[in-house]
Amino acid sequence: MGSTWKNNLSLSIFGQSHGAAIGVTLDGVPAGERIDFDVLNTFMLRRAPGRFPWATPRAEADKPEFLSGIVNGITCGTPITAIIRNTNTRSADYSNIMNVPRPAHADFTAFAKYGNHADLSGGGHFSGRLTAALCIAGGICLQILSRRGVFIGGHVASVGGVRDDAFDPVDINETTFAKLRQMDMPMINPQAATHLIEEIEKAKQANDSIGGTIECAAIGLPAGLGSPMFDGMENRISQLVFAIPAVKGIEFGAGFEVATKRGSENNDPFYVAENNTVKTKTNNHGGILGGITSGMPIIFRAAIKPTPSIAQEQQSINLSTLQPATLTVKGRHDPCIVPRAVPCMEAALAIAIYDVTL
Amino acid sequence: MGSTWKNNLSLSIFGQSHGAAIGVTLDGVPAGERIDFDVLNTFMLRRAPGRFPWATPRAEADKPEFLSGIVNGITCGTPITAIIRNTNTRSADYSNIMNVPRPAHADFTAFAKYGNHADLSGGGHFSGRLTAALCIAGGICLQILSRRGVFIGGHVASVGGVRDDAFDPVDINETTFAKLRQMDMPMINPQAATHLIEEIEKAKQANDSIGGTIECAAIGLPAGLGSPMFDGMENRISQLVFAIPAVKGIEFGAGFEVATKRGSENNDPFYVAENNTVKTKTNNHGGILGGITSGMPIIFRAAIKPTPSIAQEQQSINLSTLQPATLTVKGRHDPCIVPRAVPCMEAALAIAIYDVTL
Amino acid sequence: MGSTWKNNLSLSIFGQSHGAAIGVTLDGVPAGERIDFDVLNTFMLRRAPGRFPWATPRAEADKPEFLSGIVNGITCGTPITAIIRNTNTRSADYSNIMNVPRPAHADFTAFAKYGNHADLSGGGHFSGRLTAALCIAGGICLQILSRRGVFIGGHVASVGGVRDDAFDPVDINETTFAKLRQMDMPMINPQAATHLIEEIEKAKQANDSIGGTIECAAIGLPAGLGSPMFDGMENRISQLVFAIPAVKGIEFGAGFEVATKRGSENNDPFYVAENNTVKTKTNNHGGILGGITSGMPIIFRAAIKPTPSIAQEQQSINLSTLQPATLTVKGRHDPCIVPRAVPCMEAALAIAIYDVTL
Amino acid sequence: MGSTWKNNLSLSIFGQSHGAAIGVTLDGVPAGERIDFDVLNTFMLRRAPGRFPWATPRAEADKPEFLSGIVNGITCGTPITAIIRNTNTRSADYSNIMNVPRPAHADFTAFAKYGNHADLSGGGHFSGRLTAALCIAGGICLQILSRRGVFIGGHVASVGGVRDDAFDPVDINETTFAKLRQMDMPMINPQAATHLIEEIEKAKQANDSIGGTIECAAIGLPAGLGSPMFDGMENRISQLVFAIPAVKGIEFGAGFEVATKRGSENNDPFYVAENNTVKTKTNNHGGILGGITSGMPIIFRAAIKPTPSIAQEQQSINLSTLQPATLTVKGRHDPCIVPRAVPCMEAALAIAIYDVTL
Repeated sequence: MGSTWKNNLSLSIFGQSHGAAIGVTLDGVPAGERIDFDVLNTFMLRRAPGRFPWATPRAEADKPEFLSGIVNGITCGTPITAIIRNTNTRSADYSNIMNVPRPAHADFTAFAKYGNHADLSGGGHFSGRLTAALCIAGGICLQILSRRGVFIGGHVASVGGVRDDAFDPVDINETTFAKLRQMDMPMINPQAATHLIEEIEKAKQANDSIGGTIECAAIGLPAGLGSPMFDGMENRISQLVFAIPAVKGIEFGAGFEVATKRGSENNDPFYVAENNTVKTKTNNHGGILGGITSGMPIIFRAAIKPTPSIAQEQQSINLSTLQPATLTVKGRHDPCIVPRAVPCMEAALAIAIYDVTL
Repeated sequence: MGSTWKNNLSLSIFGQSHGAAIGVTLDGVPAGERIDFDVLNTFMLRRAPGRFPWATPRAEADKPEFLSGIVNGITCGTPITAIIRNTNTRSADYSNIMNVPRPAHADFTAFAKYGNHADLSGGGHFSGRLTAALCIAGGICLQILSRRGVFIGGHVASVGGVRDDAFDPVDINETTFAKLRQMDMPMINPQAATHLIEEIEKAKQANDSIGGTIECAAIGLPAGLGSPMFDGMENRISQLVFAIPAVKGIEFGAGFEVATKRGSENNDPFYVAENNTVKTKTNNHGGILGGITSGMPIIFRAAIKPTPSIAQEQQSINLSTLQPATLTVKGRHDPCIVPRAVPCMEAALAIAIYDVTL
Repeated sequence: MGSTWKNNLSLSIFGQSHGAAIGVTLDGVPAGERIDFDVLNTFMLRRAPGRFPWATPRAEADKPEFLSGIVNGITCGTPITAIIRNTNTRSADYSNIMNVPRPAHADFTAFAKYGNHADLSGGGHFSGRLTAALCIAGGICLQILSRRGVFIGGHVASVGGVRDDAFDPVDINETTFAKLRQMDMPMINPQAATHLIEEIEKAKQANDSIGGTIECAAIGLPAGLGSPMFDGMENRISQLVFAIPAVKGIEFGAGFEVATKRGSENNDPFYVAENNTVKTKTNNHGGILGGITSGMPIIFRAAIKPTPSIAQEQQSINLSTLQPATLTVKGRHDPCIVPRAVPCMEAALAIAIYDVTL
Repeated sequence: MGSTWKNNLSLSIFGQSHGAAIGVTLDGVPAGERIDFDVLNTFMLRRAPGRFPWATPRAEADKPEFLSGIVNGITCGTPITAIIRNTNTRSADYSNIMNVPRPAHADFTAFAKYGNHADLSGGGHFSGRLTAALCIAGGICLQILSRRGVFIGGHVASVGGVRDDAFDPVDINETTFAKLRQMDMPMINPQAATHLIEEIEKAKQANDSIGGTIECAAIGLPAGLGSPMFDGMENRISQLVFAIPAVKGIEFGAGFEVATKRGSENNDPFYVAENNTVKTKTNNHGGILGGITSGMPIIFRAAIKPTPSIAQEQQSINLSTLQPATLTVKGRHDPCIVPRAVPCMEAALAIAIYDVTL
């Protein structure tokens, strides 16, 4: 299994990078929700390859074709399925990967699990391309949530040593999200963005790649959503966020900084705000206590590893002969996947949140 | 729901801190597994309160009574249920919490979800006490895994500003785990341990608490376990680890450090080790690529927030009157929960791993 | 697994017939539901053994002890767990079963699955005794549903060749249910009941047992509950009903009779009843179309096989020697389990329905 | 949800009768399984419309296009997705159904659940056409099972008053299955087949439809597969079989006949057969005891209601005006869906069985 997630919503993602198509089935969206395809395509475009110096030049339309679940732009209540045909594939680039796994990529573990019949071509089902399917589902959830006053946004929080400003954890607003959505490099601090783009360019010049972090937030949620234990908000969000390749860590609210804090610093005092809403003065808890929303913004950050595929010679092995082998990945790859991963994070968060509201 | 987890194993945790009992049902353990109750009780003791200066003096036996699933010390294949009676409860300590939620605790969010009928006494179902149930299930999984050559161990990686040495990511061994298991303060570096205990003592003297991190690892796993997407090893482990109260972040392998790395640094080169086993020279990937085990040690770190309950006056609100209120938590609380959370992490990891091997 | 069910509600049943206790965890009941223990115990009593000539004289109190989830008679929103201690066990009766499986019982298949470590004593986890746990969970759901105007009832529809009158499929009412609940032999037609009791008595005199059918219905549900495909109402109800040992068939509405009907007979015409409610003139569809409730009464019948344990010599084999063996079951057994299974059916239906309303 | 099923295998079915396409995702089939598309298409053809007098003349190729999961005819281990485009749709036939629900069809309940945005055209997601998707998934499972010596077959057991011979419950063989697979009207007794075809013809001449039963069996399974309680074999099979529209009942082994039997008749005596295999002399238990396979053939029968769509005037209502309305279904419909439902039953059984062997 692995590629099917079943909760209030069900999500099933399929396809391999160089197969006929990739796609997604999203089951459980109630009937009567209008889907704005222009808004969805604009959202998809933020993840699309080929648009910027820091992104792979493989340019595919990535425009989903909907096969079911939407009639005249309105959901009919039964499963929504969309596919994206794979048109611009160049398998030859990957021909030697079958035998020589790329370091830090899933080639080797896919081979360990699936054996000789693993489809490693272009990363197969493990390709970052599959996040387009996640973005279709997430993009639908985002639209519906926004009509209910729940807004989600994200930005590149860091790449290498360059950091963006953080979201204000108690006072994030949709205006900020809207601005970020329109930026090629979604960051709060323009100067940091300039430096960060340089950092990526340097990595690219060195035939290398570079990692980073993404901060993502959701506002407008009431208190009381979620569950204790295994279905807490952190658990749900994590399960979806780790479905995005290259994520190696996730933290909520103050995150790993809580490790250095005292209770008197970390505890967020409650107060009563306008409309008799209970709020906290600080938001170290990231909007979640005991797995349940507090009504404060949900905030998380995820760590994205550098793209494994780099145009440098790397040490690996030949899986057939079990002899040492070197590998220089040709293909077309992003020197930094972080900017394109921002909408993926938003998609994952939107699915987790929309699911829990159903 | 939330307190039931269903995979190859099913796990159902029940109970409130000041109710009749807490307990766990673990379904799916095959018949014929010997359970050594002494080993289990020794494991449980590592989590037990009341033993050390840094732990709450509430001393309960915490010895599980098994109601089903084990006959003459051997599993019979049907659900294993164990309970721990709550004997040493002092609800009076919590009487004022009902109306005045403790900052950073789940009192408020439980109230938001369950309303006036929430059982907030002693933290109710959200109490750290419930991790005893997780440890029963995890302790069983640990025993079975160790008989198959899979070993799991953890240590306090940091508290406040004091850091322990890290596990050697490519060469962790059961000897280290065994030593750590016997320590009151499970740490690799004895000097760091001394400083760290002082750090906790300082927080205690200040009527405060302090957070920290835990590093946990598993060795002896073959390559090829796990799944892509939603049921990857990171997803599974995260879903269980975030069931432990106070966890605010998790990272695998190099974790958030990947954000500062280039691909050429982060990519772990493959080589062929003895017995034609494929290994990696470094282990930034933490034993997991594409959600699937690589055969290298699985390593993760989790951030534990400072215990919310501190003996200082804190600002909160009265939920009935919606007026400001102050709160001084009396009760008995750990100034630092991190050492007692180490076996909980091991338990969560053991459940995730044993589940995926079934 | 198998003994854990996870939907909107989660249900986890544990215990063996001759172990320390049996019990159930029901997770997902919202906070604030009053549980009337007298009503629950009265419901449990309908399933309890030892009360009638047709029931096993093994007399246990079967009174659940609640360990969690209910505070002062009100649900608190977190998992409800109840156990029943096993006190009146006589393992000696079963000593020879270990090696010689009882025909038509799960002894052999449990052995095939769990091997030598199967707990076959008294039927182990496969004992009809475990339905007491189902009745605790179902009894809670029944109470809550009845406060929302949804009523459930059942009767013995047949035993051997003796048939009770059927429910009027379009006009069942709570008054009928209430009467049936108070009968030792819950049947609509008193004369049929007399004959049916004789039929059971005859089987008993012959050291034999006898099967039967149960009809069960739910009224007061709105149209539009349920789902297409795998989570339809029939699918959900079946999954729970087949958890009751001895059930070998289930049919909804006209059931197997539809096989002999023409469309013009079987199609239930729609009409508009009082309050602009859409109803059908007949109810061959049993209240479910396309897996979704129509608002008409839900009706199903289940076939219950004769109790496998009979005091006659039966042919079997010795599992150790693989030689032929004969077996005469001593123990204490119901000549007809059907009357005691009626509340179990109601429990299963109540869980399925309450779950889908959440 | 409803249209996603998650176990060892995951199954997600999507599409509406008159939408762009229908399809299925089957996740969890291990890598390395060869899929013979000719065999699959031959299997699909048995379900296909338009071939016989008793089937709707709507003739679509129903040839699945595979989008993922199969490379060069071999599964690669990641999700298998196949779609069938809807080409021969005639929505006009259904134009008046939107407002006037067809008796016994899901039009009304879909409207009750999804409201005005339900896609009722051609039955939408509730159309029998969706069973083509089930057959793709089941056809794959059938192929794999047969290579492991597990064979599945079915026949029309009755239509109206005409009954076929039953399978020999202790001695079913693949030869019989193979013969049945090649028949247009898959029945054991040729004379019964002749009468049965006449029965269908009579219904057709009367502008009516007629129901029936299907018997389905699986052989070659070892003892010990399945689980107690909620995941027993009966539960699993039922959950999949009730996903087939028109099924109103299911019974295993002797089924509803157990209700008329004594224990001494119904209990199947054990004996030791060749190769020290434990068998039963009779098979009233239908190969399942306590939810677990006994090694004897698994046998079930399902009741199929007459096709709701008939070319007679029927009474219904206008959903907009809530006034009485009459309805004469034009469209193209099978006078008897039973023969075409046989491969659907085999598909459902194959999925349930293959799932439990993984």
